[in-house]
Amino acid sequence: MNPLPDEPKKLAERCAAVMLSGDAPARAFGFSLRRVAPGEAELEMTVTPGGLNVFGTCHGGVLFTLADTALSIACNSHGRQSVAQQCSITFVRPVQAGDRLIAHALERCRTTRTGIYDCTVTNALDGKVVAEFRGHSRTIADAMPAPR
Amino acid sequence: MNPLPDEPKKLAERCAAVMLSGDAPARAFGFSLRRVAPGEAELEMTVTPGGLNVFGTCHGGVLFTLADTALSIACNSHGRQSVAQQCSITFVRPVQAGDRLIAHALERCRTTRTGIYDCTVTNALDGKVVAEFRGHSRTIADAMPAPR
Amino acid sequence: MNPLPDEPKKLAERCAAVMLSGDAPARAFGFSLRRVAPGEAELEMTVTPGGLNVFGTCHGGVLFTLADTALSIACNSHGRQSVAQQCSITFVRPVQAGDRLIAHALERCRTTRTGIYDCTVTNALDGKVVAEFRGHSRTIADAMPAPR
Amino acid sequence: MNPLPDEPKKLAERCAAVMLSGDAPARAFGFSLRRVAPGEAELEMTVTPGGLNVFGTCHGGVLFTLADTALSIACNSHGRQSVAQQCSITFVRPVQAGDRLIAHALERCRTTRTGIYDCTVTNALDGKVVAEFRGHSRTIADAMPAPR
Repeated sequence: MNPLPDEPKKLAERCAAVMLSGDAPARAFGFSLRRVAPGEAELEMTVTPGGLNVFGTCHGGVLFTLADTALSIACNSHGRQSVAQQCSITFVRPVQAGDRLIAHALERCRTTRTGIYDCTVTNALDGKVVAEFRGHSRTIADAMPAPR
Repeated sequence: MNPLPDEPKKLAERCAAVMLSGDAPARAFGFSLRRVAPGEAELEMTVTPGGLNVFGTCHGGVLFTLADTALSIACNSHGRQSVAQQCSITFVRPVQAGDRLIAHALERCRTTRTGIYDCTVTNALDGKVVAEFRGHSRTIADAMPAPR
Repeated sequence: MNPLPDEPKKLAERCAAVMLSGDAPARAFGFSLRRVAPGEAELEMTVTPGGLNVFGTCHGGVLFTLADTALSIACNSHGRQSVAQQCSITFVRPVQAGDRLIAHALERCRTTRTGIYDCTVTNALDGKVVAEFRGHSRTIADAMPAPR
Repeated sequence: MNPLPDEPKKLAERCAAVMLSGDAPARAFGFSLRRVAPGEAELEMTVTPGGLNVFGTCHGGVLFTLADTALSIACNSHGRQSVAQQCSITFVRPVQAGDRLIAHALERCRTTRTGIYDCTVTNALDGKVVAEFRGHSRTIADAMPAPR
């Protein structure tokens, strides 16, 4: 009996539950967690009319919020409270209402207190990339806060 | 009688009205327009519990959406349909529920079809900067779409 | 006999030779090509005293130039003249004189005229990442210029 | 007799002298200091054939090195050793050999240990912007190192 290999994965799952327990915009936009692992998170959403701009395409702020939330789950997956400090996003293709989006955040490198995470947002309809995001995190506490 | 000096300002106001007429996230988060001029826009919002993350501070996605919306009004203020292509944001200080935020977007440089816009988000409570944003726009049509 | 699978690789090699034939800073800093393939390039350099800042560490401009040159080879590897438009770099760890650096640029996504390339700069001494770079390219001609 | 108002400016000048005393790439590319003040620095260079890429235009790495050096002088102007952590640059217009460039770095905001600096690179020939740069600094010591 050796539960150790599962522990980082279980820790990541517990941390993701904490993160999503109190994320109001994630709930409002309907983000759902597909998977989480140490340094990694995958979220899904379907674009509704509530996410559109005047051009009838998905607001950049919604795409950013999706990617940023995936980043926050990935960078908190090690059990230490971390926050995004600087993020950039490139809008590659327009997104329409009804499109289902998958955001996959992955740790690129990490030092003691900082990390770089890339998040690709893909349209599940055709598998094409709609946005590329890179975020920089900073660890601000050695434990996680309580869920809300 | 020389109405010309007012025209770019009036065009900017008409374009801002078009932009905000169909911006669902701007409406949901309660953004209001303080002022608009050619290459410039100022938005205001008050952070509600609906904008918080699990740490009890304003979600980075909300701050980005505010700045990105100010950018979109500023870069469309010349009467030609433009979209953000690449944006970056630095989170300088945490923001609490109840804080009133002012986002001021200003054109930094412009070529025929591209522009760079800086947007500073300030906490009206103490005048301190909470986020610095820089966005790159691309003009995709020579007129504006109809309001929605 | 089917030479086709090799052709994109050979095209990439010819394009890299063109790029390096007239790159004065690459020559001055002593960059050498380790490998090139479609959408990919790997450069190597050894940091000399000529690359140091007053703190005695490698100047950020040298690390950027290395990554940017790898990007330019990767984004020109398809045989169409392309230029960097917007690039960002994160300095992860300091680099000393004598360190041997490897920059690996890889295409992340591509549309008809634009591309996103990530370049990781690693210290060959310990295998640790020293800088992470992301660059956006734009294709400006359908062929390559002549070598210089 | 009140020498105080001059002191921050004199401190900035002394710090700039330290920074440039050991900056090998700045010397190699021929950067010269036009002015320095607290949180601000202006450098100048003339593009030589040694700064060109194969397209016959100024290498992005040279433009970045110029802006990054201006940033390093500006962020060290307060007398505390600071380094760039993350920088981004947008190439707005191509630059030719013989063009004289002016890089003006200005502090945008600052907390205890971090700062954001914008640097605009202008072609002195026609006054047009050729690159826009934004850099993030981190203070790593409360004094400056000795000149080299």
